[in-house]
Amino acid sequence: MEKKTGGVTAAKGFMAASAAAGIKYQDRTDMAMIYSKTPCAAAGTFTTNVVKAAPVVWDREIVENGAYAQAVVINAGIANACTGEKGLAYCRQTAEMAAEALHISKEAVFVASTGVIGQQLPIERIVNGVEKMAEKLSEEESAGHEASLAILTTDTHEKEAAVSFEAGGVTVTLGGMCKGSGMIHPDMCTMLSFLTTDLAISKELLLEALREDVEDTYNMVSVDGDTSTNDTVLLLANGAAGNPEITEKNADYEAFKKALNYVNATLAKQIAGDGEGATALFEVRVKGAESKKQAKILSKSVVTSNLTKAAIYGHDANWGRILCAMGYSGAQFDPDQVDLFFESAAGRIQIIENGTAADYSEEKAKQILSEPEVAAVVDLKAGKYEATAWGCDLTYDYVKINADYRS
Amino acid sequence: MEKKTGGVTAAKGFMAASAAAGIKYQDRTDMAMIYSKTPCAAAGTFTTNVVKAAPVVWDREIVENGAYAQAVVINAGIANACTGEKGLAYCRQTAEMAAEALHISKEAVFVASTGVIGQQLPIERIVNGVEKMAEKLSEEESAGHEASLAILTTDTHEKEAAVSFEAGGVTVTLGGMCKGSGMIHPDMCTMLSFLTTDLAISKELLLEALREDVEDTYNMVSVDGDTSTNDTVLLLANGAAGNPEITEKNADYEAFKKALNYVNATLAKQIAGDGEGATALFEVRVKGAESKKQAKILSKSVVTSNLTKAAIYGHDANWGRILCAMGYSGAQFDPDQVDLFFESAAGRIQIIENGTAADYSEEKAKQILSEPEVAAVVDLKAGKYEATAWGCDLTYDYVKINADYRS
Repeated sequence: MEKKTGGVTAAKGFMAASAAAGIKYQDRTDMAMIYSKTPCAAAGTFTTNVVKAAPVVWDREIVENGAYAQAVVINAGIANACTGEKGLAYCRQTAEMAAEALHISKEAVFVASTGVIGQQLPIERIVNGVEKMAEKLSEEESAGHEASLAILTTDTHEKEAAVSFEAGGVTVTLGGMCKGSGMIHPDMCTMLSFLTTDLAISKELLLEALREDVEDTYNMVSVDGDTSTNDTVLLLANGAAGNPEITEKNADYEAFKKALNYVNATLAKQIAGDGEGATALFEVRVKGAESKKQAKILSKSVVTSNLTKAAIYGHDANWGRILCAMGYSGAQFDPDQVDLFFESAAGRIQIIENGTAADYSEEKAKQILSEPEVAAVVDLKAGKYEATAWGCDLTYDYVKINADYRS
Repeated sequence: MEKKTGGVTAAKGFMAASAAAGIKYQDRTDMAMIYSKTPCAAAGTFTTNVVKAAPVVWDREIVENGAYAQAVVINAGIANACTGEKGLAYCRQTAEMAAEALHISKEAVFVASTGVIGQQLPIERIVNGVEKMAEKLSEEESAGHEASLAILTTDTHEKEAAVSFEAGGVTVTLGGMCKGSGMIHPDMCTMLSFLTTDLAISKELLLEALREDVEDTYNMVSVDGDTSTNDTVLLLANGAAGNPEITEKNADYEAFKKALNYVNATLAKQIAGDGEGATALFEVRVKGAESKKQAKILSKSVVTSNLTKAAIYGHDANWGRILCAMGYSGAQFDPDQVDLFFESAAGRIQIIENGTAADYSEEKAKQILSEPEVAAVVDLKAGKYEATAWGCDLTYDYVKINADYRS
């Protein structure tokens, strides 16, 4: 496996474009398009929110019943959520317009939106944007990069990752881009992720691989059930690498899964570190657990605790809040067995030993917590399972961004 | 039922005192004592956190196995949580010292602590404080008021409530005080509440009444399971009013339950409105629900959504976030049936009709949301059940308080 530069155009046969459609932002691009020269096996996972945005309804239908997919149209600024029949009609119209411009079937066009909930899309601007983008599609790495910029909302930077690996004797590439920000509670982040690969693989295995990996990556940033109305991960595989199609769980499948995990985990961490107003990526690893489930529940409870996040912002080794967040998580454990460490580029320090304060230096702890990436490592000393969750600190700017978001 | 002034000394036969023991704060009182001249039936409800502070362990034993109770010793500044065997020994020592000074049994002395987790109590200062308070106990309203000030941490003001009602032909009084602040997620608030009444009632019914009422009051501020290590509600009944002891669920019992609900709901709302850094009390009522449980889950999910709370701070009618928080709550409902209204002293406005935006004035909505007490009223139009949850807005000051708390 080899890390590569680039994003959605890293894999063979994929093109991208972006446009300034003026949907809500007036001074930047706000639409992106991904296109594969040939039909793709397509997989997707979507929000579990009872309230589902119109594009989620549209895309799920394609993943569940469509024969293949070939393009994705994305807009930032308006989420097309809580928009009723009209919102769904706008999805159809967007897909139809893209299908016409690209000479493909409208059932092969995914749509995705992110932004304010409850407003209707300015459909003429969307249609104009689609037409513009269809004309300027490009396989260049820069085209993928421009697309990754166009889909952002309150994100402070673009998020891309790519990797190559061997399968069936040929080099296969997998790349992706995503957007997502506002990680206090994941209700605030619409997370959109788009992955493209030139791997040949059956639709069934593609979907299985994606569903499994999402549990360990994006869902360890977003807490289960705490998903926005629009959360979407799409994965397109066009087979352009020329490997024998993967139709069973062989070594090629395992190589693909490893690559998929690398790209998804990289993007997930980028989302966490770019939480609205965040100054630090906050990683929580729980090890020595009796089960994977226990480790996941505990790590997520800590990473989403406002009190803990505010303490991380203050570079304060307030470990009581971590033990408290574990305590109300719903998972059972023995508090009197817990060890806790803080880690960062500045070092590692033990804070709790067997449930009470270790003899540590507050100064050293503060130094460790002042880095842009900090980790809390919890050892339950009860078993062999572990899990990692990602989040960020809670800052004044988070509040500012979310108090003013619509204006 | 008649509202009264005062708090824990409102009911006959109860005395209170406070002291500046210098536990953590140097410029204010930080200990309080409640004492009943005669033994009391005692009830209590406690945190569901797996990590339980030492005083919670001590008090539960009294509620479950004690014959009666007669005093409560409270300190602010240090929570005596995650303090191991030593922490429990300090509870015992505090109770022993109070028992000796008051000439009662140590098994009749509750203890309660709030503040930083993980530090040991300065036991000599606690003991000195207990001795001082035992000497200056008073039945005056002002003594109860001073006690309500001594138990605060990041609270901005004291919280008291009292009421009188008729039972068995005599006038009975119920009063209480509480502390609690930091309501974003209730993990941040240790909530302590102390209630005293001169009612004569069996211990069994006292406990049943308290347990039921806590579900509709304090637990609608604190989300289930998201409780601090120290959360405690104690209720002492000394029978000094002279009513025939309540031993069955008769009209007197109902009158008491009504009074109990008034005092608890009043204190709960005071806690919510005094959330750390809060500028507004935020009430969420869900009506037209198919079950009480559905209404509770939905109202709590909205009132704890950081995104919604930040929007309330911004006086922004960002209703999409409310529908989104309902959607990820875990409760099922039909989003296309939902009506939503905002209410405050400045008026009432419909924001959502059948799941999409109503035709409303943003200016009027802003005006309504600019009041110190605002309510979101959700109508599911699906049944006859309803529930109310209380919280507050999310502000810069919340982050500031919690980033700096230990220093």
